[in-house]
Amino acid sequence: MTHIESRQNSTLRHLARLARDKKYRKTTGEMACEGEKLLAEAFASGARVKTVLLRKCGEPDSLLRELLLRAEEQGAALFSAEPHLFALASDVETPQNVIFSCEIPIFSGELPPVSTAMLLDGLQDPGNLGTVIRTAEAFGLDALVLCEGCVDPSSPKVLRATMGAIFRQPLYKLPLDAAAKSLRAQGLPLYAAALHTDSLPITSLDLSRCAVVIGSEGHGVRPETLGICDKSIIIPMAGRAESLNAGVAASLLIWEMQKARSRTS
Amino acid sequence: MTHIESRQNSTLRHLARLARDKKYRKTTGEMACEGEKLLAEAFASGARVKTVLLRKCGEPDSLLRELLLRAEEQGAALFSAEPHLFALASDVETPQNVIFSCEIPIFSGELPPVSTAMLLDGLQDPGNLGTVIRTAEAFGLDALVLCEGCVDPSSPKVLRATMGAIFRQPLYKLPLDAAAKSLRAQGLPLYAAALHTDSLPITSLDLSRCAVVIGSEGHGVRPETLGICDKSIIIPMAGRAESLNAGVAASLLIWEMQKARSRTS
Repeated sequence: MTHIESRQNSTLRHLARLARDKKYRKTTGEMACEGEKLLAEAFASGARVKTVLLRKCGEPDSLLRELLLRAEEQGAALFSAEPHLFALASDVETPQNVIFSCEIPIFSGELPPVSTAMLLDGLQDPGNLGTVIRTAEAFGLDALVLCEGCVDPSSPKVLRATMGAIFRQPLYKLPLDAAAKSLRAQGLPLYAAALHTDSLPITSLDLSRCAVVIGSEGHGVRPETLGICDKSIIIPMAGRAESLNAGVAASLLIWEMQKARSRTS
Repeated sequence: MTHIESRQNSTLRHLARLARDKKYRKTTGEMACEGEKLLAEAFASGARVKTVLLRKCGEPDSLLRELLLRAEEQGAALFSAEPHLFALASDVETPQNVIFSCEIPIFSGELPPVSTAMLLDGLQDPGNLGTVIRTAEAFGLDALVLCEGCVDPSSPKVLRATMGAIFRQPLYKLPLDAAAKSLRAQGLPLYAAALHTDSLPITSLDLSRCAVVIGSEGHGVRPETLGICDKSIIIPMAGRAESLNAGVAASLLIWEMQKARSRTS
């Protein structure tokens, strides 16, 4: 393990930049994560961990020792730094004990055969995206596809909101028309969640095998996307609300898809 | 309309303090909201608007003129200020055209007769609370009860996340044991959402007439609350996730309660 003693250290700067700079993450293909829990998740999912930075404050506990051992076995570079230097690489005010970088676990190739998928058409809010990833994983959605205009899934805010699901949920980054074409070739109906008066209530549909598109928080599904979809669907509301939070709408749909699927299987 | 010309103006300071100071909101019983949309919601719901501050930048449009007329009719005090002074009262970087104060629309007395209720046992995140209020209103939940340890519902972050539902959703602030007693007296079963192995899956329960308790993001429902509840319930998950986001869990339960209710009615 290399002990970092300068704020100019290249690893420290690398991790700090991964936490703050979207373009840098794109160029390097890496992202930065904080905490033992996430590091354990990364190993469990087979993510390629590159660098591990330990916050020096007393002896590491048994969990952390085990994780460091594992990192070493996998050929990750290990570093330590005093708390004041460690904090420079952290994105939060109260840093955890470990920061690591790993390859961004998002696929950009062809979609595999799936029964349920959700396409995000410009989801903007980091908390919402993180929540949708977390819900998708909780309910076993086959594929979550990030299309044009979505917030960067490797940003620290998104990663935190996923609570580790970033490493477990199958995630794809594809243009919407390519994803739609691929899903249609698999025979999946493509539904757009849209607040239109002629949208079909989801309670009247079989969602056991389908793909659903969720639009952006401000503008919903784009008109060109609606043109590609087979039908518009709506979550029936009882109150005077005009809409649901986009993360909640996506979560309800994923829940209904999973329930429909477990009924038919 | 009074034109404010000093940053020491008492109305300006009153609004700024309402946006920032929880204790001040509690003492005054007022909260500060931004935007024409929220002001229209406040009037539509019969909320008592006290002060309206207009951002001076050209002529107000027809919607804003109508709102100001309405504010005047209701006896609210009207003020205007140049953008640089107006910004001092705002909580956000890009202020809207109007800020107003009104009575906090939360009841603290006895719960009325209800069929569906949700009790929040220490929900901490402002975004989550705002989202739950928005979902509750969308699905017509009879009563949302804020119990011990919840984040202040009159904070600007919560208000923004409700998207106006703060003025439409029946909200109560009560100690959990008082709310539980009142609901039990109405014959409602009280369920705690808890990630226990012996919790009943919600898919096996009739949720058409019940009250559900949601715990805090970090620690779930408190042990003493579990003791008060009739049963622990769980949203069945398929993936490796340990839990859902608290706002998502609450939203799914409210959705299921509304569906069960509409089936029986």
